[in-house]
Amino acid sequence: MKNFETLLSQKAKEIEKALKKQISLIKNTPQIIRDSMAYSLEAGGKRVRPALVCWAAQAFGLKSADVMPAACAVEMIHTYSLIHDDLPSMDNDALRRGKPTNHKIFEEDLALLAGDGLLTCAFETLARCGAKKSVGAGNALKACAALAHYAGASGMVGGQVADIFAEGLLEGKSKRAAKLAPLKYFKNKKPAYYLLPAEAKEVSAAQILKYIHENKTGALITASVETGALLAGAAGANLQNIRRYARAIGFAFQVVDDILDVTATKKQLGKTNSDAANKKLTYVSLYGLEESKKAAQKALKDALAALKVKNKEKLLPLQMTAEFIVNRSH
Amino acid sequence: MKNFETLLSQKAKEIEKALKKQISLIKNTPQIIRDSMAYSLEAGGKRVRPALVCWAAQAFGLKSADVMPAACAVEMIHTYSLIHDDLPSMDNDALRRGKPTNHKIFEEDLALLAGDGLLTCAFETLARCGAKKSVGAGNALKACAALAHYAGASGMVGGQVADIFAEGLLEGKSKRAAKLAPLKYFKNKKPAYYLLPAEAKEVSAAQILKYIHENKTGALITASVETGALLAGAAGANLQNIRRYARAIGFAFQVVDDILDVTATKKQLGKTNSDAANKKLTYVSLYGLEESKKAAQKALKDALAALKVKNKEKLLPLQMTAEFIVNRSH
Repeated sequence: MKNFETLLSQKAKEIEKALKKQISLIKNTPQIIRDSMAYSLEAGGKRVRPALVCWAAQAFGLKSADVMPAACAVEMIHTYSLIHDDLPSMDNDALRRGKPTNHKIFEEDLALLAGDGLLTCAFETLARCGAKKSVGAGNALKACAALAHYAGASGMVGGQVADIFAEGLLEGKSKRAAKLAPLKYFKNKKPAYYLLPAEAKEVSAAQILKYIHENKTGALITASVETGALLAGAAGANLQNIRRYARAIGFAFQVVDDILDVTATKKQLGKTNSDAANKKLTYVSLYGLEESKKAAQKALKDALAALKVKNKEKLLPLQMTAEFIVNRSH
Repeated sequence: MKNFETLLSQKAKEIEKALKKQISLIKNTPQIIRDSMAYSLEAGGKRVRPALVCWAAQAFGLKSADVMPAACAVEMIHTYSLIHDDLPSMDNDALRRGKPTNHKIFEEDLALLAGDGLLTCAFETLARCGAKKSVGAGNALKACAALAHYAGASGMVGGQVADIFAEGLLEGKSKRAAKLAPLKYFKNKKPAYYLLPAEAKEVSAAQILKYIHENKTGALITASVETGALLAGAAGANLQNIRRYARAIGFAFQVVDDILDVTATKKQLGKTNSDAANKKLTYVSLYGLEESKKAAQKALKDALAALKVKNKEKLLPLQMTAEFIVNRSH
């Protein structure tokens, strides 16, 4: 683990340098909005997602520098999601990574716009990879589409929605759906309307939790790995395998988050442990702590099994990331 | 004008059909978020921006169908900006196009996420143009980057920020800056910090208004025209000219909006006339009604002068759009 933490923190330094550069490229804008965007973007974090972009690209033969704008793009999207998630109308959090949340400094309207600005900037930034000969416009466009797909309503945003409506579900009803129910617009809507895709075959707490996990956090982890792989031109069975790896670590990431919300201290987390207080549907609340730990270990096994590319050395960072995600303490 | 309204409403019908199709392509998501996105996307509006994408592309030889996903993308971004703009922490509007605003139906958290979902979906949708042989990945990637640029902090989001901080400025001070001033973080910040890009040479109400106009509304109009032109491979002098046209009509659009907020009825606007009540810095509040009308006519002249491509007929819709924007009554 020690080795990996060194590897990750070196990569994080490169990424943070690149993030500063990308933010400095934003011209023609009042300084306050750039500061508001930078405030959250530079607030720390482990930078696992952007590192995954680099390592996935390296696994398929690219250099880290070739995809650095894409790595920044993923971190921008992650950061925007945190800013919006912390807003009073969402989780209403005052603390994030041990610092006041964006809206506590810049007020709600600017925090909203900083999130919008980061999300938009992500695509301008990612597009810059297309200028690299080793990447090309075709691969960059595929990566753009994939990132938008996983970050949007079919992915992260969809997971957020289900997460909101799942609150209180274990006690018998969705608090948020009950609030909407009196409106004519929502007459006769079934629970799945709020909680699951229309394609879902079964409505159960387990299915809902699976959807939330795969999308709320999982989707952006998958996107990170897939963005890197697509930029490197990965296709066919290679793409399938790396996607299987990505899904497994994405799932594990959220399960471990749920576990840590129960077992870690506020100081370790750098934020308030709030799942239990908010009556969130989590892996721990549904299956208990022991089962959750087992599920995380099983996901790790799946992830490692999916890493079947010839060049073992090139895959080492991805392998170590999977182990880190499952065994981390914060 | 009659002819143009027919032309625009025909195009609007095509666009609305395409929007429905694009929304139906969003899978793996709880129905409520797709409904929330569609609620605002299908709430009407003149569809001037997406029509401009089509007409600009046609001016450079493409078919409207080749760029329809891009037209939808621009309308998604326009719609997301309205949803977020109407939120309680922003303009707190209850009415939009004669209907309850998104958060009045879906509540604030879902409205926030519907906006995020639309903004993200725009890039997935636009990327679909790359699959058309007549467009190609290179042009689609350029269009992606341009749209993100104009919609983000260097464009629309930047304009929004300056607009927020300009409130109360004509009475001597920015209400919003005064609110932030007590925080250590904002100690000794000059007005330009909130209102103008660092590159701005002069801080005056006129400069600030110019920045707001060029960016709050103008940037997305410019983006519409430029997206269409880039998808068609426009470059060099052709791109310069069409951009000059776009900037002129974008400027005119916002000036006319300011005029109509004073002269049109609530029914004509489909929303509350709120600029004066909010003490907004507008063309009318700074220069008066007559000067504003003159400025709009001058912009029209500039726009028409910039349309200098050989094939006159192909430019007709763009010419008529410019006339419509300046002479509309709602």
